[in-house]
Amino acid sequence: MSNCLIAQSGGPTSVINATIAGLIKANQQDPVYEHVYGALNGIEGILAEKFVELTNLPEEELRILIQTPSSVLGSCRYKLQRDNPEDHKKLIKIMAEHDIETLFYIGGTDGMDTVADMAEYAREHEITNRRFIGCPKTIDNNLVMTDHCPGYGSAAKYIAFTALQSWLDLNVYTRPEVFILETMGKDSGWLAASACLSGIVDILIVPEVPFDQEAVLNRVRECIKEKNKCYIVISEGARYADGTYLSSDKAKMAAFGYTFSGGASAMLQNLILTTNTASRVRVHDLSVSQRCNIVGRSLTDVTEALNVGEVAHEYSKDKSFTGKMIILRRKDTREYEVEYTYTDASEAAGIVRTFPEEWLLAGNRGITEEALEYLRPLIEGSPERVIKDGLPAFVRPYYLR
Amino acid sequence: MSNCLIAQSGGPTSVINATIAGLIKANQQDPVYEHVYGALNGIEGILAEKFVELTNLPEEELRILIQTPSSVLGSCRYKLQRDNPEDHKKLIKIMAEHDIETLFYIGGTDGMDTVADMAEYAREHEITNRRFIGCPKTIDNNLVMTDHCPGYGSAAKYIAFTALQSWLDLNVYTRPEVFILETMGKDSGWLAASACLSGIVDILIVPEVPFDQEAVLNRVRECIKEKNKCYIVISEGARYADGTYLSSDKAKMAAFGYTFSGGASAMLQNLILTTNTASRVRVHDLSVSQRCNIVGRSLTDVTEALNVGEVAHEYSKDKSFTGKMIILRRKDTREYEVEYTYTDASEAAGIVRTFPEEWLLAGNRGITEEALEYLRPLIEGSPERVIKDGLPAFVRPYYLR
Repeated sequence: MSNCLIAQSGGPTSVINATIAGLIKANQQDPVYEHVYGALNGIEGILAEKFVELTNLPEEELRILIQTPSSVLGSCRYKLQRDNPEDHKKLIKIMAEHDIETLFYIGGTDGMDTVADMAEYAREHEITNRRFIGCPKTIDNNLVMTDHCPGYGSAAKYIAFTALQSWLDLNVYTRPEVFILETMGKDSGWLAASACLSGIVDILIVPEVPFDQEAVLNRVRECIKEKNKCYIVISEGARYADGTYLSSDKAKMAAFGYTFSGGASAMLQNLILTTNTASRVRVHDLSVSQRCNIVGRSLTDVTEALNVGEVAHEYSKDKSFTGKMIILRRKDTREYEVEYTYTDASEAAGIVRTFPEEWLLAGNRGITEEALEYLRPLIEGSPERVIKDGLPAFVRPYYLR
Repeated sequence: MSNCLIAQSGGPTSVINATIAGLIKANQQDPVYEHVYGALNGIEGILAEKFVELTNLPEEELRILIQTPSSVLGSCRYKLQRDNPEDHKKLIKIMAEHDIETLFYIGGTDGMDTVADMAEYAREHEITNRRFIGCPKTIDNNLVMTDHCPGYGSAAKYIAFTALQSWLDLNVYTRPEVFILETMGKDSGWLAASACLSGIVDILIVPEVPFDQEAVLNRVRECIKEKNKCYIVISEGARYADGTYLSSDKAKMAAFGYTFSGGASAMLQNLILTTNTASRVRVHDLSVSQRCNIVGRSLTDVTEALNVGEVAHEYSKDKSFTGKMIILRRKDTREYEVEYTYTDASEAAGIVRTFPEEWLLAGNRGITEEALEYLRPLIEGSPERVIKDGLPAFVRPYYLR
């Protein structure tokens, strides 16, 4: 019996470790592999042979692993170079030395690129006993081919309830006031759009639609006039028609003649204040909390991340299964249901899926009912929480042991 | 039978509405007052006679009221002027017109000032049938006389798990990196200190100890050398020995020759970068989320906020009970237990309780075991959550109806 290896890459998510747990659990119930290894810090750790043993993780540790946010195996931004196969060769050699037949790589578009690349290298060199399988994860929901991506639901839920709670906070005083919530999303508006689940967003600014300064400031004026408040959600990747990010120094210099720290929301805050559109503007940048949210995760998301691991393990029994990425397909049922299937990892590698423009309301007014229907099931349910001393228990990251 | 009135003042908390629910519930079970009214936006709303009827709120709405963060009655920063009794006179007159015997005022040090002030005015004018009772609330835990303050436990819990989750996030890459978490706390370090419950804080900077630039930068260097990472928590009110806030323009000009947006954490980030102490520093300002946290509240906190309302209602049966604030006293028991008693509101009015210096470790290294023992019970337990469409249900604020 050969072994398998799990590694994680790219930005962490709240449920990325549930996929590891799914793989381990599946192999405990159906031992396809003698050992389930984990590699520390993605490809970097594989090349450095930094492995940990995960095969027989006790059930209690698996329970806590499922609720541990962020990547317990560590991550990397290391990319294999297609025109320099030294890394590819070394990786295959290390896999052979440890009798590792299958590498399960949990990642986003870059991760899928690695999976596709390694599978292609193996095919070219007629190596049939080293296989590469991608498990999707990203809070950005920007992977193509899959209905949505594990990690997104919990991030969306975090953003939605943070929007709701900060909107309640904004309203307690009688003074006129603007609130700006900044989400991640360099190239797509999926995260910012999820704030609309709260039902309180007045203005939504996403990278898909060029930032129209006058239109946005007019809408702020309108909201203040109508109800004394204005609630804005903006993607970090908000940009002008020429592609310049609001957060870039160039944009700041053009608008104010000087640069200042802070991203898209700080820029917009400055604009609103210096144009006297409103006299009080508060900014809340969600920072990393949206991708490692520990208490408000979605049950749908946790369950699906776990299932992706289990399904990947099952598909890997087929000896010709390589260069694939597990995907979720939403069934055409009344109640939300998904099925798990796969596609070529190369189909998703390096491609960004943006938020559908037909789901955006005109004039930055938010998203359509169809979009909300797509989003709602993804944030449903609360997973179990194992608590220790009042805080969620977590598995100590393997790279810190 | 006369009536009572409830109003809220100052910054919101995650459990401030549980105290309203406690008052309403207590009066439903033991009808001391014919009507329980709510005033919109504190003293401002009383003077404008903006009242809502709360007497017979159905049980289901009370359940949801308990979990609704932020002030459902709205808040104000309005302060009565002691040397101008026009407002006092008007307030007494309005209470008389609506046959309101007791005003329950839920607030912090300013709110207690109002309670003390109005009670004194009534005493001076021999008005015995208008009474004023303070219910403590503040995330800052900066009220004296009480062991701790409703609102603090949930904020502390939010800060602690956010520290934990962002520390997990910080560690996933192998690169050297500093993380700075900024909490509220203009004059006291209670909120920042609560991050230490997570067990991961390397450097704690609070207003109680003057900011020592060289010592802090040295400690950052030490942490980076030892483990490649450094996790810092800083109060918004961090200051130099001369009292200048790190977040002030004056401090920024002195350090860099220019000002920039952002508070204490942005200033520290700049310092670390420009002195080449570390090359990568991420900042996370918790903004309002720490005071209106909707999903991670503490059961201890919710229960105590509710009890404060019930106890205030009970004490108010005594016709001489006025100018008082309900307080919590921690019993000398093995298991955490509190009893509810009272003090003169004037004892807490306008006084800031700082974090005990003997609970701070030297060299910004965090807090003592004694401090942790004080904090731990305050974040214990998870209250029930009523969910609607995947998000916590909330009572629509009365001032928006």
